[in-house]
Amino acid sequence: MAGEAQTRELTVDLGERSYPIMIGTGLLARTGSLFSERGFPVKSPILLVTDRAVEDLYAGTVEQSLREAGYTVARAVVASGEKSKSLDVFEELVTAALETGLDRRSTVIALGGGVVGDLAGFVAAAYMRGVRFVQMPTTILAHDSSVGGKVAVNHRLAKNIIGAFHQPEFVLYDLDTLASLPPREVRAGYAEVVKHGLIWDEAFVKWCDENAERLLALEPDALGYALHEGCRVKSIVVSRDERENDLRAILNLGHTIGHALEAVAGYGELLHGEAIAIGMVGSARLAARFGYGDELAAETERLLRKFELPVRIPSGFDTDEIMAAMQHDKKFKEGQMVFVVPKRVGEVEIRSDVPAQWVRDIVEQLKGEAGKL
Amino acid sequence: MAGEAQTRELTVDLGERSYPIMIGTGLLARTGSLFSERGFPVKSPILLVTDRAVEDLYAGTVEQSLREAGYTVARAVVASGEKSKSLDVFEELVTAALETGLDRRSTVIALGGGVVGDLAGFVAAAYMRGVRFVQMPTTILAHDSSVGGKVAVNHRLAKNIIGAFHQPEFVLYDLDTLASLPPREVRAGYAEVVKHGLIWDEAFVKWCDENAERLLALEPDALGYALHEGCRVKSIVVSRDERENDLRAILNLGHTIGHALEAVAGYGELLHGEAIAIGMVGSARLAARFGYGDELAAETERLLRKFELPVRIPSGFDTDEIMAAMQHDKKFKEGQMVFVVPKRVGEVEIRSDVPAQWVRDIVEQLKGEAGKL
Repeated sequence: MAGEAQTRELTVDLGERSYPIMIGTGLLARTGSLFSERGFPVKSPILLVTDRAVEDLYAGTVEQSLREAGYTVARAVVASGEKSKSLDVFEELVTAALETGLDRRSTVIALGGGVVGDLAGFVAAAYMRGVRFVQMPTTILAHDSSVGGKVAVNHRLAKNIIGAFHQPEFVLYDLDTLASLPPREVRAGYAEVVKHGLIWDEAFVKWCDENAERLLALEPDALGYALHEGCRVKSIVVSRDERENDLRAILNLGHTIGHALEAVAGYGELLHGEAIAIGMVGSARLAARFGYGDELAAETERLLRKFELPVRIPSGFDTDEIMAAMQHDKKFKEGQMVFVVPKRVGEVEIRSDVPAQWVRDIVEQLKGEAGKL
Repeated sequence: MAGEAQTRELTVDLGERSYPIMIGTGLLARTGSLFSERGFPVKSPILLVTDRAVEDLYAGTVEQSLREAGYTVARAVVASGEKSKSLDVFEELVTAALETGLDRRSTVIALGGGVVGDLAGFVAAAYMRGVRFVQMPTTILAHDSSVGGKVAVNHRLAKNIIGAFHQPEFVLYDLDTLASLPPREVRAGYAEVVKHGLIWDEAFVKWCDENAERLLALEPDALGYALHEGCRVKSIVVSRDERENDLRAILNLGHTIGHALEAVAGYGELLHGEAIAIGMVGSARLAARFGYGDELAAETERLLRKFELPVRIPSGFDTDEIMAAMQHDKKFKEGQMVFVVPKRVGEVEIRSDVPAQWVRDIVEQLKGEAGKL
């Protein structure tokens, strides 16, 4: 990625717990001054949680900036990948927090992708029943997970089943960190960007469609705009329904099938963005069954293909296993399958009257057409 | 314990999250109808968490009552004692919750003392980022821990260090369950009852003083009144400061020294109530150093002796270990020792200017006089 982008800022409006998201270039080096300006206490040590892939590239910049501002910071590094989202690694981080002497006014920083954010966020939520938390996402996908306060670790039987709602103090999104992303992760990241358009904002979907090439090339200003818009939609939804009583569930477009595919593949085999891209095509086909027309599925598919995302279930997947995995989903309420179904581009609805047979048919279709991928 | 007591009810006032505490006899058998009246969904399974000591005595009554009202309930039994407040046992309970099919509208019930309440409460707080929680305390001590929403498990380096604020839907306090308490636990339980008087309500302290014999004999009406008053003080304080930003810290009277003694003794050797009884004597001696007079310590000691509680540190304890354990306390902020110090009976203040040497002197005194216990 070459060049600079303007710094964009928006606010997640949650009353007392409102917080800003800053998106731009060269931001990590400003960490220390941001901590000072916001009154983070200098005497309380900070724990910087990151993973092996990110550590060498960016941890030093953050630490140096904090130390120059007078803060004490210790680094805790976890293995890259979904396997670190476990209770065992969580316990190791709590040990690190205790050994570093973190107190109630301390801060846990998550520097990394969604795995690091979810894991470090749960440490911040549970350590001493909650300390300050700062998100520094380093992937495109994490524009989604870093906003909204959902943090969690996995259990061997189910993903994200142990967690909390714990909002960060701020989100610092340094676009420079995205330059090091593998191309497959860039593509997968755009799945959640597109999702935010599909559930809320037709104009943004159109913009994504027109700017797909610039986005895949990581042009700073296009990237900054896309992440700002994705975060904006996310923050509007979260502001209106922090605890997912109703509206927030629309963010799960593509996730019922997507999570099941991830579980069956073994976490990490299929990237999260890839799984939900396939799931969004599945949801659009459900829409057709509910009478919202066939074009929606075709249009969703065309857009996702433009971002070089998968739109079919790989043929090796077992339909029964996929269906069984959906039963363990948190979105499964009182014996009913719950799906987010698009009505048109930019609007969705939550349906709890989806016959399991429709879902099974669509899973079979998406597998059967896998050859045409 | 013979006879019945009137059912007393009070409300913990936390806006949307307000909840009732019901104290009386014969309440466990009414669990099912209480769940129905309060609209707990019949389709969502319930997990009843209890321990070996309580299981045989009371779990059947609760389960039968729930089943008669149409609910599905599974039982998860943990070993009695502080060792069950671990991440390992927490994980076992999450496994049980998943295997029972608990969904987002499900309820976790804690039937037992403080250990079961803290542990099951953290399961309720973290499972799917939070499900309903009901407290059914079966000890006197748990009148304190079951109110206010603090839930947690221990880490090998520190007690209650992994947890959440998660308020119950209601607290059901069946006095019949207290009849099976060992006398030592009865006495230890009254330490927290007396504490609630000492921090807030001089008249209640006087009442405790005059009714100590009836209380030690578990006379139902005296017991019901004492627990009601203890819960009332706790709920007033929690209502005004749920997250322990300031006022709530007064509930920690006696806990800085008390927790350290528990940690040094090895959890479970010294009962929690016994440890904080000693701690409250220590705090009253600190008060003398701050110029609040020597009578406070003598009076605190006399009252606690009336409840047959220890008021000296057993001579085998190492002073350096006790001092070191205090450094790991959550109440240790930014390098300062924080203590709750009584000003007079019924009023305390929070002091963060306590010289470590004063604390060390008092610990030494309380050890040196151990022979006079």
